[in-house]
Amino acid sequence: MSLANIRIVLVAPTHAGNIGGTARAMKNMALHRLHLVSPAEFSIGEASARAAGADDVLNQVHVHPNLTEALDGCRYVIGTSARPRRLAWPQYDPATAARQLVAEAGQGEAALVFGAERTGLTNTELERCHGLVTIPTDPGFSSLNLACAVQIMAYELFRAESRGGSPAPVDLVAPEAIADSAEVERFYRHLEQVLIEIGFHDPQHPRKLMRRLIRLFSRVRLEVNEVNILRGILTAIQERRTPPNI
Amino acid sequence: MSLANIRIVLVAPTHAGNIGGTARAMKNMALHRLHLVSPAEFSIGEASARAAGADDVLNQVHVHPNLTEALDGCRYVIGTSARPRRLAWPQYDPATAARQLVAEAGQGEAALVFGAERTGLTNTELERCHGLVTIPTDPGFSSLNLACAVQIMAYELFRAESRGGSPAPVDLVAPEAIADSAEVERFYRHLEQVLIEIGFHDPQHPRKLMRRLIRLFSRVRLEVNEVNILRGILTAIQERRTPPNI
Repeated sequence: MSLANIRIVLVAPTHAGNIGGTARAMKNMALHRLHLVSPAEFSIGEASARAAGADDVLNQVHVHPNLTEALDGCRYVIGTSARPRRLAWPQYDPATAARQLVAEAGQGEAALVFGAERTGLTNTELERCHGLVTIPTDPGFSSLNLACAVQIMAYELFRAESRGGSPAPVDLVAPEAIADSAEVERFYRHLEQVLIEIGFHDPQHPRKLMRRLIRLFSRVRLEVNEVNILRGILTAIQERRTPPNI
Repeated sequence: MSLANIRIVLVAPTHAGNIGGTARAMKNMALHRLHLVSPAEFSIGEASARAAGADDVLNQVHVHPNLTEALDGCRYVIGTSARPRRLAWPQYDPATAARQLVAEAGQGEAALVFGAERTGLTNTELERCHGLVTIPTDPGFSSLNLACAVQIMAYELFRAESRGGSPAPVDLVAPEAIADSAEVERFYRHLEQVLIEIGFHDPQHPRKLMRRLIRLFSRVRLEVNEVNILRGILTAIQERRTPPNI
């Protein structure tokens, strides 16, 4: 059951009603794992009223201080975007994104991320995602209610799961091969450290360097052995950096 | 524009929030004609808050005393049902129903009818419909929020109108941004050179290292500015490698 491996992540939701509405929309479509990233304080009573019987989803909600923690252990992440972006990420329509997520969730943990009601996902948050999905709307009035956006995607996930066998459009990587988000984060920290050590990166004047590099590597879906090679290179650079003591 | 010929009919809605949420869900998907059949008294303010900018749809709402009047002039009507019914009507999934409605709306007036929140459409009301649509849900928790049900169907109508099918993954990268193969090759040669210099790569015992790295970067579709950053890093490593001559 792939849906059991899919978490819905709401970043900085501000309305209790949307959190409750999201719980209901999820449970209607057999999704049960709701994660919130630094939500505004909300009334459980108001959320529960809109959940309308999906209190079990609300009661098991996980709250995280940042998106990185909310994605811990995920091998595949799709972010929602109100509009197509001029970025190099794969961009999918909802049905394709759902097939992709369900296929990946057959191999391990996957996440679908929604941004804050007014602002959506920031570019920094999108950089944690392997692909983007845009729900098509009238360009003149494109701002969907958050719970309604979750509902559309949950509906597509449920359909994709029901169809079972539909092939994913993108090649699947063997499950053991994909580095999880924690391994990739450690690589990023190592990379940043080395770039500082070699004088290429100045955290006081970052010039978006790390964001650009993260954006590059998050498009790849690094495999475990690739992370090992890259970190081996970083270590080799560090060992050569200092002239050996004699 | 077939969507202009499609009206959304809510029979006996009881919550102002659902009426406002329906207006918003409709406008997001380029639907503008909302008809209500004997709604419970509702607060315009509350409906308007949930409409979140779709007040024009609310302001043009038509209120009718019964379903027959609400369907006046329609040549084709589909009703929603929370579950498949043992009835002689054609029963469709949402995508098929939407294609059907859009095709019919190309010829004249058409309607999609939603029942009251708690009860759905009665059999008498269903008899006014030419077909039924059931949104698939988890059978253990099948009651969708009314505005969310409208949102799913509006989404399917918009898709059906737009193209009737799910497009292939879109790649929106500006063509000039992508590094050409010669630039990428120069990066590979530079990378190999640096890996040799730092003692990580021995061309006599290559361990498939370069093949693995090329496989990694070729998955990315490197952009020009990314190649520049990566080569800048390589140059910085080279400059640090050799202790400066004094």
